[in-house]
Amino acid sequence: MISKKMKPLVENNSVIRVMFEEGKRLADIYGAENVYDFSLGNPNVPAPPEVEESILEILREEESVFVHGYMSNAGYEDVRETIAHSLNRRFGTAFGAGNILMTVGAASGLNVILKTILDPGEEVAVFAPYFVEYGNYVGNYEGKLVVVPPNTVDFQPDLEEFARKLTPRTKAVIINTPNNPTGVVYSDKTLKKLAEILKEKEEEYGNAIVLISDEPYRELAYDGVEVPYVTRYYRDTVVCYSYSKSLSLPGERIGYLVIPDELQDSRDVFAAAAIANRVLGSVNAPSLMQRVIKRCIEKGASVNLEVYCRNRNRLYEGLKECGFSCIRPEGAFYLFVKSPVEDEKEFCSRAAAHHLLLVPGSSFACPGYVRIAYCVSYGQIERAMPAFRALAQEYGLGMAEGKA
Amino acid sequence: MISKKMKPLVENNSVIRVMFEEGKRLADIYGAENVYDFSLGNPNVPAPPEVEESILEILREEESVFVHGYMSNAGYEDVRETIAHSLNRRFGTAFGAGNILMTVGAASGLNVILKTILDPGEEVAVFAPYFVEYGNYVGNYEGKLVVVPPNTVDFQPDLEEFARKLTPRTKAVIINTPNNPTGVVYSDKTLKKLAEILKEKEEEYGNAIVLISDEPYRELAYDGVEVPYVTRYYRDTVVCYSYSKSLSLPGERIGYLVIPDELQDSRDVFAAAAIANRVLGSVNAPSLMQRVIKRCIEKGASVNLEVYCRNRNRLYEGLKECGFSCIRPEGAFYLFVKSPVEDEKEFCSRAAAHHLLLVPGSSFACPGYVRIAYCVSYGQIERAMPAFRALAQEYGLGMAEGKA
Repeated sequence: MISKKMKPLVENNSVIRVMFEEGKRLADIYGAENVYDFSLGNPNVPAPPEVEESILEILREEESVFVHGYMSNAGYEDVRETIAHSLNRRFGTAFGAGNILMTVGAASGLNVILKTILDPGEEVAVFAPYFVEYGNYVGNYEGKLVVVPPNTVDFQPDLEEFARKLTPRTKAVIINTPNNPTGVVYSDKTLKKLAEILKEKEEEYGNAIVLISDEPYRELAYDGVEVPYVTRYYRDTVVCYSYSKSLSLPGERIGYLVIPDELQDSRDVFAAAAIANRVLGSVNAPSLMQRVIKRCIEKGASVNLEVYCRNRNRLYEGLKECGFSCIRPEGAFYLFVKSPVEDEKEFCSRAAAHHLLLVPGSSFACPGYVRIAYCVSYGQIERAMPAFRALAQEYGLGMAEGKA
Repeated sequence: MISKKMKPLVENNSVIRVMFEEGKRLADIYGAENVYDFSLGNPNVPAPPEVEESILEILREEESVFVHGYMSNAGYEDVRETIAHSLNRRFGTAFGAGNILMTVGAASGLNVILKTILDPGEEVAVFAPYFVEYGNYVGNYEGKLVVVPPNTVDFQPDLEEFARKLTPRTKAVIINTPNNPTGVVYSDKTLKKLAEILKEKEEEYGNAIVLISDEPYRELAYDGVEVPYVTRYYRDTVVCYSYSKSLSLPGERIGYLVIPDELQDSRDVFAAAAIANRVLGSVNAPSLMQRVIKRCIEKGASVNLEVYCRNRNRLYEGLKECGFSCIRPEGAFYLFVKSPVEDEKEFCSRAAAHHLLLVPGSSFACPGYVRIAYCVSYGQIERAMPAFRALAQEYGLGMAEGKA
């Protein structure tokens, strides 16, 4: 009954999602407080109070048929304008409503832009470790995913290897900064070099290569680290944004695409993307949430970053003390920890025996590592530390004496 | 820059949507009250008060991280269970949460089920007149749309012609009842005969043929007309539902798929559909609206059907008086009117000169007719009657004397 393309997806159902279901199962048996689920990027920080305030204001002040009704497939014009101005203020860009297309989260935004530009057989480059769904999104449009191997020194992309992987069939490159799963923020230097290579290759091949910047974690950067705005480096850039993390609204499916004027054929791409939004079945981004976003921007709402930062510090320090090895993440809410054994799936299984749910790096095309999502309660991190310690001891990792 | 598949879509952008934009333009020039926009199925009846009540209750009673957070890709279990029980009560079915998959409206539901079952080159039959987007949805998965010509006598599907169009490559049939654009409700007799043909063909070809019932208008039936529940006629049925019309929430993108146990490989199809929901980018149906639906069902919420019924009566009678010819619709909120000239696009152009925005039937593969959406204010219908009358006179249609 099932299509040939869907069969392998059913067989290898997303490891992360399977973990999510497994976590629920274990919690039912042992109690939620005795299961240390670090597997899913489901924010535990509540949405800021401005979300609820905005909903209440909208219900009081705006007409039902407007708030819950259809609008242009690209979204409400005033919402898009508010977003554009907010970006302009923060990043020195010059966007208008005509550059912003509201989407059902970043996942849908990625699908929309890929459907808009990708012909069968064209290549889309990604840097390992990368979000495994990119492969499915590219596959939806018969594109070919080209994986640039990881640079495990500092997890900035390996740009020399990247340059060698580009071909006349390369149509797009997807980057993700701050990065899932490493927490690394791509540096100014990285983006300059990346843009340089892309410009050269565009000229060499005479084709447009679109840099797709997937930015659900843009607002989640710690210690004042700056996350450079990618459209300022390279003109053929499209940004995919989501409020899932920045306003803790992952279930609401609300985000947008930025399609700058500088992009080649910008107006056609925008029109086509609005149509892609429609024919893929979204039609438009959820209407009430669009209106909430406008008010939240005007109110300057943001999630409590301190919570994630504190979690990061506690978990990072704790894991180091246990003897685990990991780079210190500057953004997002993930730690990417080196597995003490080559087969990190085995490591994950042994972690699960301690009720620690971690995601194997091979789910991100980077075996030998595991992802730990720290968008959980501080209490869970505290409670999980003895389990991490016991796990480290099983592998004979050295403990920092006197600190435990 | 744009993919080969998207190019023709940009060139022939949906006539309905173009009208929607044109309506906004005319309204800006002449004032909204002087433009009679009958082009879009955007309900003018506000959402029932239970929607707002439910939102307020949810904000008061449920946790933010739960209300706005991720859940299983199929949706919240309790919401799905409430929907299943509601269907069981009303239609004598025996569904559970495991048969209901929450989707981003019916448009996304159609995409999800088509992606789940359709292999490239497989055929999907539709009955003219049909919603033009079906062609795009089927094209997304490289399927081939097979159009059964209209039966313009009563707009029940032409089942003899249908039987002749089925082939060993037929994978699915899409029906839509109450129908957009005709307002016709498929009768018990029609569904029995349709099921009989499908069963025969399944046996003859040894393939499953899935009957996809697209039902955004299920709750919009007038004068006590019953809309038979399709899963009771044919086991290989999948229902696509949306709350866009029944609760006036089209912008919110909330609906569901029913995947009955009786469907062949039902559990695999459900699992694959949940994955398709994810990889197409929806991930899950908007979370707050899922929770709203649960409470609205418990409260027995429904839109004020009287408004649409009154509109239908006024417009139907008025158009008949003008001399237009049209079958009396039993459901949905459309009249499908015979164009006084063969080229209904010319008729639509002349209507637009009277500020009447109508959709040509060729947008539904049924030229010679136009669609008039009456989900508008009663006042607009009243104000538009002189324009309809003048238009009728241009075509020399007979007026019922003494009634104008």
